[in-house]
Amino acid sequence: MKITVLGAGSWGATLAALLFENGNDVVLWEFDKKRAENLQSRKIKPFAAGNDLPKDLLVTNSLDSFKDSKTVLFAVPSQYMRSTCKYLKDNGVSLDGKLIISATKGIENETLLRMSEVINEVFPGTYKNIAALSGPSHAEEVCMKMPTAVTSASESAEAAEKTRKLFMNKYFRVYNQTDIIGVETGAALKNVFAIASGIVDGLNFGDNTKAAIVSRGLKELARIGVALGGKEETFYGLSGAGDLMVTCFSRHSRNRAVGEAVGKGKSADEAEKSLGMVAEGIKNAISAYEVGKKLKVEVPIINEVYKVLFKGKKALDAVTELMTRAPKHEQE
Amino acid sequence: MKITVLGAGSWGATLAALLFENGNDVVLWEFDKKRAENLQSRKIKPFAAGNDLPKDLLVTNSLDSFKDSKTVLFAVPSQYMRSTCKYLKDNGVSLDGKLIISATKGIENETLLRMSEVINEVFPGTYKNIAALSGPSHAEEVCMKMPTAVTSASESAEAAEKTRKLFMNKYFRVYNQTDIIGVETGAALKNVFAIASGIVDGLNFGDNTKAAIVSRGLKELARIGVALGGKEETFYGLSGAGDLMVTCFSRHSRNRAVGEAVGKGKSADEAEKSLGMVAEGIKNAISAYEVGKKLKVEVPIINEVYKVLFKGKKALDAVTELMTRAPKHEQE
Repeated sequence: MKITVLGAGSWGATLAALLFENGNDVVLWEFDKKRAENLQSRKIKPFAAGNDLPKDLLVTNSLDSFKDSKTVLFAVPSQYMRSTCKYLKDNGVSLDGKLIISATKGIENETLLRMSEVINEVFPGTYKNIAALSGPSHAEEVCMKMPTAVTSASESAEAAEKTRKLFMNKYFRVYNQTDIIGVETGAALKNVFAIASGIVDGLNFGDNTKAAIVSRGLKELARIGVALGGKEETFYGLSGAGDLMVTCFSRHSRNRAVGEAVGKGKSADEAEKSLGMVAEGIKNAISAYEVGKKLKVEVPIINEVYKVLFKGKKALDAVTELMTRAPKHEQE
Repeated sequence: MKITVLGAGSWGATLAALLFENGNDVVLWEFDKKRAENLQSRKIKPFAAGNDLPKDLLVTNSLDSFKDSKTVLFAVPSQYMRSTCKYLKDNGVSLDGKLIISATKGIENETLLRMSEVINEVFPGTYKNIAALSGPSHAEEVCMKMPTAVTSASESAEAAEKTRKLFMNKYFRVYNQTDIIGVETGAALKNVFAIASGIVDGLNFGDNTKAAIVSRGLKELARIGVALGGKEETFYGLSGAGDLMVTCFSRHSRNRAVGEAVGKGKSADEAEKSLGMVAEGIKNAISAYEVGKKLKVEVPIINEVYKVLFKGKKALDAVTELMTRAPKHEQE
C-alpha cells in the first residue's frame, strides 16, 4: 500500500517510520526543500530522541508520490493545515477517493474549525474519507516501540478500519471510533487544562488540586464536545481522558511548563519567552473561551485560565474562585 | 453539631480536624486505648506530615460521645470496618437516626461487600442514612489546606447534602452524588490499576503505556461498576477517573510502588516485604478478578494483573497479550 505522509516533524516522521516498518510503501513529504534533502541524505534526524529514519524510507519535497498513493496522512502543524492543503490543491493534487488520515491535533484559529473540517473545506467531499488518529502518544516513546494505544476515528467505519489496519502492530494498538468530532475536539482543547495544571504546580499545590482540575476539566471538555455534536463517552476514552491526563501530569508537557511559570507570577508572554517554547494551549484558551461563550456552555476552569492569561487575574484568586463557587451536583 | 469520628489514622484525624475547624463539636474516637491517650495528651501526632491536632479536639477511647452525636464518621481501615461496627453494637451503640459518613475505601474480602453494605449488615436499616465521602484526597495535602475536591454520595439526597455542608470550605469542595454504588466501587478497585501502572513503570515503559492502562482501566472499572448497579458516568468523575489518575501517576502511591517492583521481576510477596509496605491493590486484584468472573464482565487488564501477581506470569508477556488482543471498537 503506497502512503504519502505530509510533514517531517517528529510526529510525521515517527508515523511514517511505523507505517514503513509495517510493510507499506511510504514516502515522507516535507514542505521545506532543504530539510527534505537533509533528511533524505540522512544528514539530520527528525526525531527528538535521536533515532534515525528507516534506511529505505524516501523523504521528498516533490508532489509526484501523491499520484499513486491510495492514502495520505497529514502530520503538519495545525496552523499550517489550511495552507498545506491549498498548496497541494494549487499544484494539482487531488485527494478524491483516497483514504485521508489526520494526525494533526488542533483547532483553526478564528474559524474554530477542526482539522478534518479544514481539509474538507479545501477538498470538498472528502470528509467521509477522513480518519483522525489521536490518543496519548509521545513520538519519542513510539519510536522506542513502547506500548501505545490510540483511536482511529471516522464517520466512515471503513475509513477507521483501514486506518487501524495500516497502523496496528504489537506495540501500537488502535481502537476504532465513529465520533471524529469528539476525538478531534478533545485533542485540540486539552492543552487549556495542561496550562491550568501547570498553574496549580506553580502555586505549589499538590496532587489533590491537580486531580480536581483534570477531573472537572474533563467534564468541561465533554460539555463543549457534546455542544459541538460529539458524544460524551468519547471524552472518557483514549483521546479524551487518556491524552488529558498525560498532558497534565507529564513533566515533559510544554503547556504544563508554561502554566507553571504563569502560576509563579509570570505573564503568558514572559513565560513563553523565558522557556523558549510556544504553548499551543495559550491560543487554545482563546478558542475554548470563545466556544464556551458562543455555545453557552458552563466552563469555569476555561474561563479562569482565560482571565489569568489575558486579563491579569492572579492565579491564586482564580483557584479560590473555582473552589468557592456555588455547590453543584457532580453530574449537573 | 456533634460528630464522632471513628479511627485516628491519618485520614480520620485529618477529617476530624477539618470538621473541627469548620466549627463543629468533634470527638475523635480511637479503638486502641493507649494510642487514644497519647493522641489526647498530644504525645504523638496522627499526621504523616507532622501537623498537630487542633488544641481543643478531644481524642478518646470511650463510647460516651456516641450518645449525643448526630453524625458518625467511619475512617477505619476497610479490613476493620465489620469488627468496629460489631464492637459498637455489642457495646450498646445505636446508629438509628444518625447521619453516617463512610470515608473508608475498600471492598470486604470474601463477601465482596462495599463499606456501606457492611455497616448496613451490622446496623440494619441504616443504608439510607449513609453517605460515602470519596475522591482524590491525600491526607497530607488536606492538612496543608491545599485545594481538594471530593464527592459526597448517598441514595438519600438529604444525607449527601448534610455531609457536603459539614465539610465544604474554601479549600475543600464537595460535589453531591446519588450513586453511592459507583463511588464506592471505583474507590475500592482503582488500586488494581495502580499496580498495573507500577508494573508498566517497572518495565521502563513511558507515559504512552501508562495512559493506555489508565484509560482502558477506567473502562473496566466502569463496566464492573455498571454490572454491580452503579452508573457509568460516576466512574468518569472525581471518585473514578480523578482518584484513579492520581493513584496511577503519583510517585507516592504504595500500590504503584509495589507494582513497579513486580514489573522489575519481584513476586508480590517479595515486593511488599522489600518495600516494607502493604499494597491493598494486591487483595483488591483478587476481588476484582472474582467480581469480573462472577459477573461475566470483560476485564483484560484486571485478569493480566491477577495472572502476574498470582500465577507467575511474566509482566512483559502480560503487556504483550494486552496489546495483541483482537481489535476492538473503543466503546465496545
